[in-house]
Amino acid sequence: MSTHHPLYDTRYGGATQPVPELTTALIDQLLTHRSVRAFRPDPVSDAQLSAMIAAAQSAASSSNLQVWSVVAVRDQGLRDQLAEFAGNQAHVRQAPLQLVWLADLSRLERIAEAEGRPSAALDYLEMFLVGVVDAALAAQNAVAAAESMGLSTVYIGGMRNRPEDVARVLKLPPKTFAVFGMCVGHEDAARPASVKPRLPQSAVLHHEHYSTDQSVAVAEYNAAMARFYEAQQMDVKGTWAIHSAKRVAGPETLSGRDRLVEALKARGFALK
Amino acid sequence: MSTHHPLYDTRYGGATQPVPELTTALIDQLLTHRSVRAFRPDPVSDAQLSAMIAAAQSAASSSNLQVWSVVAVRDQGLRDQLAEFAGNQAHVRQAPLQLVWLADLSRLERIAEAEGRPSAALDYLEMFLVGVVDAALAAQNAVAAAESMGLSTVYIGGMRNRPEDVARVLKLPPKTFAVFGMCVGHEDAARPASVKPRLPQSAVLHHEHYSTDQSVAVAEYNAAMARFYEAQQMDVKGTWAIHSAKRVAGPETLSGRDRLVEALKARGFALK
Repeated sequence: MSTHHPLYDTRYGGATQPVPELTTALIDQLLTHRSVRAFRPDPVSDAQLSAMIAAAQSAASSSNLQVWSVVAVRDQGLRDQLAEFAGNQAHVRQAPLQLVWLADLSRLERIAEAEGRPSAALDYLEMFLVGVVDAALAAQNAVAAAESMGLSTVYIGGMRNRPEDVARVLKLPPKTFAVFGMCVGHEDAARPASVKPRLPQSAVLHHEHYSTDQSVAVAEYNAAMARFYEAQQMDVKGTWAIHSAKRVAGPETLSGRDRLVEALKARGFALK
Repeated sequence: MSTHHPLYDTRYGGATQPVPELTTALIDQLLTHRSVRAFRPDPVSDAQLSAMIAAAQSAASSSNLQVWSVVAVRDQGLRDQLAEFAGNQAHVRQAPLQLVWLADLSRLERIAEAEGRPSAALDYLEMFLVGVVDAALAAQNAVAAAESMGLSTVYIGGMRNRPEDVARVLKLPPKTFAVFGMCVGHEDAARPASVKPRLPQSAVLHHEHYSTDQSVAVAEYNAAMARFYEAQQMDVKGTWAIHSAKRVAGPETLSGRDRLVEALKARGFALK
């Protein structure tokens, strides 16, 4: 049971994890995922992009409604604008390809209109949620596909900081929403990213019922992250727990996303 | 460019797609994904489950907050209850393992409390959305991992039909929400599932700006789906477009999920 699998050791920061006896080449690749924020200028080819999107479309879609879209942005001027909207993230300017993943209820609205049928359910939070989940499942398949081709990625949640500005420059119709961006490109080997440790499985995996008894796992993870920060020579104040609590202290810590409801309503989502 | 790759042909229902010149073993596996709804009783092992969760935890997480959890349900009585809540789906009773994926802001709330810090941002729609996206990215990695081990899956959106009942039987604390379930098991070879065609890439992939010019792609897809229904001997009324429009006609078509806002507020999400 406790033969140490090096990929699991790295993923869990050397914590005392039960190690599964099973792995596959695909799981090994997923375990070594790293969010990369330093890219070379080399482009992502059309064939690579098309393969990523085919993988994305192969993810499950609720009732096969496929209520998502993605905008591939290669234009430097547009990427500069998106970088500014997302809180001036340098890697958004730098990565040769920015994928903006949309919850897209507008296609279904146009289809219903063309058929002369009502589509009032699109005004409910449920359908917005279906769009978000569809987009997220698709995007994660695209990440796995990209990494299998030697490309690197990082999700850009900052694309939600200024939703109306993002919509304006990408010419998004009402009832579409940029859930997140994603830098895609070739990692700059001079500034490599590391595998970030995660919480012990016991903190996130529950059996039969939810268990709130997670304090030992969190303490163990604080220690694993302290070792990680030290190894990375990162100057992080306090533990992962304190750092994380600070991120959710109040609306002022949400980088403008405290007005998401208002922004979504302006984008045509009634959120009933 | 147009050498026909058989996996792409199947995924796009034989539509006239540009075929990427690139693929990898991982992409080939993603392309062959099928949602399976007929399972043998054979169990999913602890090692298989642990490998799926390690893959899930390796997905990106917004600011590394890891605001998701998963409940693994093997107990037949619990699975029977969940099946009932999800609209009496037989495969939820039948599959040996049901994974219920949670947006989980409760762990971070407990952490902040233990540190004597405020966590008022958890009351915003943004943080609920982060939990949903974190859970979805994790779940999709788990699907890929499962399929690489020869297991099959299907997402269960019906877990949102009766959120309070799901929360009660799984003993979910406030600020957790079951985003979807997932059947995991071994496919019953006597009732195999098929790869479902998806929209042409041109309908979902946009370049630089969003294009609403999708009617040709949708018409092509209606034809591809008609061929699929016929090949599957499925009795589907009308086109995919009509079928999809009917799904979003109004609140009565949402299987109870038109009251999601109310249910989420009862689960402790203020959705400010």
